[in-house]
Amino acid sequence: MDRDEYLERLEATTEASADLFEHFEERATAGRTHYVLTAARHGVERGTVIVEETETIVRGYPSIPRILVLDPGVPSFFEESETVAIEEKLDGFNVRIAAVDDGDPLAFTRSGYVCPYTTARARDRLPLEEFFASHSEKTLCAELVGPETPYSTHEYEGVDTHEFRVFDVRDRESGEPLAVADRRRLCEEYGLTQPRLFDRAAPSDAVRPTRAAIEELDAAGREGVVLKSADGERLVKYTTEAQHHEELAYAFSLPFDHGRDFVFSRIVRDAFQAAESDADEDRLEERARDLGESILRPMVSTIRDVEAGETVGERHTVRGDPETIEALLEHLRGQSLTIDLESDRREDGERVLEFVKVAESSRDRIRYYLNGGTRDE
Amino acid sequence: MDRDEYLERLEATTEASADLFEHFEERATAGRTHYVLTAARHGVERGTVIVEETETIVRGYPSIPRILVLDPGVPSFFEESETVAIEEKLDGFNVRIAAVDDGDPLAFTRSGYVCPYTTARARDRLPLEEFFASHSEKTLCAELVGPETPYSTHEYEGVDTHEFRVFDVRDRESGEPLAVADRRRLCEEYGLTQPRLFDRAAPSDAVRPTRAAIEELDAAGREGVVLKSADGERLVKYTTEAQHHEELAYAFSLPFDHGRDFVFSRIVRDAFQAAESDADEDRLEERARDLGESILRPMVSTIRDVEAGETVGERHTVRGDPETIEALLEHLRGQSLTIDLESDRREDGERVLEFVKVAESSRDRIRYYLNGGTRDE
Repeated sequence: MDRDEYLERLEATTEASADLFEHFEERATAGRTHYVLTAARHGVERGTVIVEETETIVRGYPSIPRILVLDPGVPSFFEESETVAIEEKLDGFNVRIAAVDDGDPLAFTRSGYVCPYTTARARDRLPLEEFFASHSEKTLCAELVGPETPYSTHEYEGVDTHEFRVFDVRDRESGEPLAVADRRRLCEEYGLTQPRLFDRAAPSDAVRPTRAAIEELDAAGREGVVLKSADGERLVKYTTEAQHHEELAYAFSLPFDHGRDFVFSRIVRDAFQAAESDADEDRLEERARDLGESILRPMVSTIRDVEAGETVGERHTVRGDPETIEALLEHLRGQSLTIDLESDRREDGERVLEFVKVAESSRDRIRYYLNGGTRDE
Repeated sequence: MDRDEYLERLEATTEASADLFEHFEERATAGRTHYVLTAARHGVERGTVIVEETETIVRGYPSIPRILVLDPGVPSFFEESETVAIEEKLDGFNVRIAAVDDGDPLAFTRSGYVCPYTTARARDRLPLEEFFASHSEKTLCAELVGPETPYSTHEYEGVDTHEFRVFDVRDRESGEPLAVADRRRLCEEYGLTQPRLFDRAAPSDAVRPTRAAIEELDAAGREGVVLKSADGERLVKYTTEAQHHEELAYAFSLPFDHGRDFVFSRIVRDAFQAAESDADEDRLEERARDLGESILRPMVSTIRDVEAGETVGERHTVRGDPETIEALLEHLRGQSLTIDLESDRREDGERVLEFVKVAESSRDRIRYYLNGGTRDE
């Protein structure tokens, strides 16, 4: 491939960008050769994919910064001349759906893998053919949400198994987003379900409605918000206490797989939120208790499971046509995951599979310590 | 200096030990040249010091492994033929006191610095002249405890300001410990106060008395125990819930200085202890609540202090003769600490100084986030 041409198309930011290609990994995917950027470099997002045969670039989804206080976090992040759209942030699995080929569209994970299951479900659930017929150069950025996905299990009212929510539409190659209003109109036109838009406001007026949105979402056990400048260019996120504690509970249910990486950042989020929002002592006490329970109970419960010889890991249920389910298993095993099948049945012509991504580090470390193993710290 | 000779005397463990000297740092101390090992290498402990002029080696204090469950942690750590001594582990500052010279003995910190304050206090409080007259080749390993030290503030009943507790006596050069019984007898002979000895038992019988000791210590808010083989060679530690939570509270009072390093390990200790000891639901709930409070409250309180423009950091009070206090300040500043003096007075002919080791990382990060700064994770 002509690297200079790709560098130009990627608009990589520095003189040193020539080394960018050292960080692309070659993968054979869906009969094509994909070069995937495994970490953000020179202004190019992680998960950016170059499809060799079709000379297509699918730009990665940017990492969204986070504010820890709403005031002055919101007004200081945006220009006062911008209008801020307050949209819900959903707890699911981030995928980019793009038509890289004359063939059917593919669903790319954040790190640039094509997930066969998400791809099949997207083709089944979303009007992709119709959309890409007129917008072949665009990427649909969507969250796969619901209790039955191979990646996340957060329950949403009204979502029995899994659904897509389109939260962004971007130029496939440049990553340039549509303006918020244009994107919402376009998605409506095609019947693509979107996250809730809470409000629009000038930055200095956006704190109050954002706080109200967060309180409502927190009470419902939902994740949080993404604030977007009207042109869709500038994004910043802020999350609920419920989400911090849910993530800690997840991390400490598999402590030696996720605990160390997750714990500090979630505590930091929670403490700044408490300092800003928990004016009264009862509220702070309740948060502290809930924080402690989120950390301790899942870990104690996992230690006891290991002691009892049970399989520990992330449990997922997926449903779809048998070939898709088989392809998903192959995809997951290809990523060095150990998969334990817990149940496998037919329901309304679909294969319904319950499986566990075995948390081997947690299982092995816990066993070691339960057997009297020592620790150096 | 003759490196080969020192390598032989240090009994460094591997063929590759020749590179050991790359990890020794040269420091001018008390009119002598000290070579200090800054990290454990080739079986030689961190903080090992070679005094060039006198050709003395002061061996570092070994890092003590930790068990996370008492059963089977205790019996599996020791040989069944060994007797296990259960001694209290104190929460203070670990120093080695050795007579490296014809002159007065010096107190070395864990990392091999000579602390002028601890040295002066040790000379004042302990019968060092008498002890080293007969045991010049030994090192007294002691914990400096009490509310008034430059390093720790844990309160012990009956300790108004600070005192030394001798928990080990070792050969200065080889690090070889005295047997527990010999050491306790020797310390008694010289009137050197020691940590409490709870019990002695065969490894398989040691779980029950250790658990009883831990329960008693936990109720008194004390740190834990060190279990020692009778010959003093094999050491393992186990700590109380009170200690885990106290350390978390300390770490999260200075979250961006200590939070990330401290948090995961303390949670791990607490969770294994809970899984082993908290049979009933109320006990677990109480621990979880206390864990959450230990993490959240100090951090929220520090955020509010920074917001109010107050100095955040570790507060310490020290007392002694004016020259020693001055030397301490110089010593601390020499280690790149920023020291804020809070009060400075005379009491009974001593200078009493209250100061803060300013936690600059915590102060600066908290300010940044309170001003609306963003975070990438």
